[in-house]
Amino acid sequence: MTGMSKILECVSNFSEGRNKDKMENIVNSFRGKDAVKLLDYQNDEDHNRMVVTVVGEPDALKDAVVEAIGAAVDNIDMTEHRGQHPRMGATDVVPFIPIRNVTMDEAIEVSKQVARQVAESYDLPVFLYEESASNPERKNLANVRKGQFEGMAEKLKTPGWEPDFGPTAVHPTAGITAVGARMPLVAYNVNLSTDRLDIADSKAKKVRHISGGLRYCKGMGVELKDRGIVQVSMNLTDYKKTALYRVFELIRIEAARYGVNIVGSEIIGLVPMEALIDTAVYYLGVEDFTMKQVLEARIME
Amino acid sequence: MTGMSKILECVSNFSEGRNKDKMENIVNSFRGKDAVKLLDYQNDEDHNRMVVTVVGEPDALKDAVVEAIGAAVDNIDMTEHRGQHPRMGATDVVPFIPIRNVTMDEAIEVSKQVARQVAESYDLPVFLYEESASNPERKNLANVRKGQFEGMAEKLKTPGWEPDFGPTAVHPTAGITAVGARMPLVAYNVNLSTDRLDIADSKAKKVRHISGGLRYCKGMGVELKDRGIVQVSMNLTDYKKTALYRVFELIRIEAARYGVNIVGSEIIGLVPMEALIDTAVYYLGVEDFTMKQVLEARIME
Repeated sequence: MTGMSKILECVSNFSEGRNKDKMENIVNSFRGKDAVKLLDYQNDEDHNRMVVTVVGEPDALKDAVVEAIGAAVDNIDMTEHRGQHPRMGATDVVPFIPIRNVTMDEAIEVSKQVARQVAESYDLPVFLYEESASNPERKNLANVRKGQFEGMAEKLKTPGWEPDFGPTAVHPTAGITAVGARMPLVAYNVNLSTDRLDIADSKAKKVRHISGGLRYCKGMGVELKDRGIVQVSMNLTDYKKTALYRVFELIRIEAARYGVNIVGSEIIGLVPMEALIDTAVYYLGVEDFTMKQVLEARIME
Repeated sequence: MTGMSKILECVSNFSEGRNKDKMENIVNSFRGKDAVKLLDYQNDEDHNRMVVTVVGEPDALKDAVVEAIGAAVDNIDMTEHRGQHPRMGATDVVPFIPIRNVTMDEAIEVSKQVARQVAESYDLPVFLYEESASNPERKNLANVRKGQFEGMAEKLKTPGWEPDFGPTAVHPTAGITAVGARMPLVAYNVNLSTDRLDIADSKAKKVRHISGGLRYCKGMGVELKDRGIVQVSMNLTDYKKTALYRVFELIRIEAARYGVNIVGSEIIGLVPMEALIDTAVYYLGVEDFTMKQVLEARIME
């Protein structure tokens, strides 16, 4: 009765953040479709980029995303694109994210079907990335996107950088697109009672994976000049394995060494309920709790 | 697309917990209906009672509940009912609970429509209780139910105890029913590192409303003999105003006075996601958080 028994999310990034008509032409692909729900779309004029958040049944979502990538091919000319954010195509990155009753394997399968279909329909080269990547080097989007639109013609000729689908040449106006699957990403920042950026940087180094910290945490120190404080700004790439409370408590005990306290934290954008419920269950020490006890989880079943 | 834009819950209590056919006849009223979803039903043989949890769009849910009360009139004979739980009718109590995009006023209105309709259709007297009560004395179910099935014929003749709807005489086999509206109830227990029941009782007295504690908290001490510990067993009758973390922290600081620690807690049955998310937001000190940031809340919109 709640319509969607399986829920997959897609957070597509398009290289158009200034022309309203063009943005609407793309977003319209997600409107008025059965079993597809447009949750949010936000453009950034400086980045000249738009991020569209959609959920849906896997098959219905797949079709809508293919349509939207077609609209981006029609509406965006990368040879004229200027913006601050790194980008390589009209549709820049398309991650599929399992939300409810969908496995990561199913999300990967959907990403590959979309990649194949847009390559064939629009003559667009596609890299698979993150969990869908065909080799370890392609997992990280930064590696995949290196060279950006302007450098891609050359990059595709480099051995090891053939696209996973589509021609071995960039699309003249739409460039190249990365399609993949990943866990939901939680943008989580912790604010500290100091204006010393070096302390925020040092905390970031202690919690983030790359420098010895938690496996699914990326992070860096950031100044909040208007508030006169600093923050540890993070992306948690798998909240099921690297929980919010663990990140928070680790920063707390590390900051204490400098006599610095946590003054608050921030969640940017959307967060799956389980990430916060898991945190509540930890602090309350709730025994034998399951997500099936959450009323809304039962309603959505 | 998620089917239900407004969600109302109903947790009906029926006085049949032993005869499977009769229970199924009642529960079937909630099956195969558009915009009605049966979440759970549990019977207790000692209590000879069944609790059915259903959600739905207000109008659809109303019709299904009226049908179920009719099935209970047809299937249950209160003159033969024996069980440990206090009860006064075949359908004993029917609370409507606003869950999503439904106000308490709307829930009250639905409860009154159901009360009027079952009174007319089945010649059944009905008391309104909790938020729907027609006077303060009828708010508390214990007051309303006092005298139970056997004492109701007499009670209805007492000035001030006329039913809100229906005849001023008990239904010969179905007795009398209480219909009302209330907030979701969270059954929350906190376990203490001691086997002394007097300490659990003392903590219960400190947190519960009736003895000077938190406004929407009821509670008592309970022994968990198999674990050799005690617990403060509570009902939180409005988690939005009396938050779980506040109850938990209050018990923690009161127990500390005896050198007793909290060893864990329990949530019994279903809990609205907001009750736990609110708790996570407190412990992480999340700034400017809104429920609109919760992915599932957005999907259900």
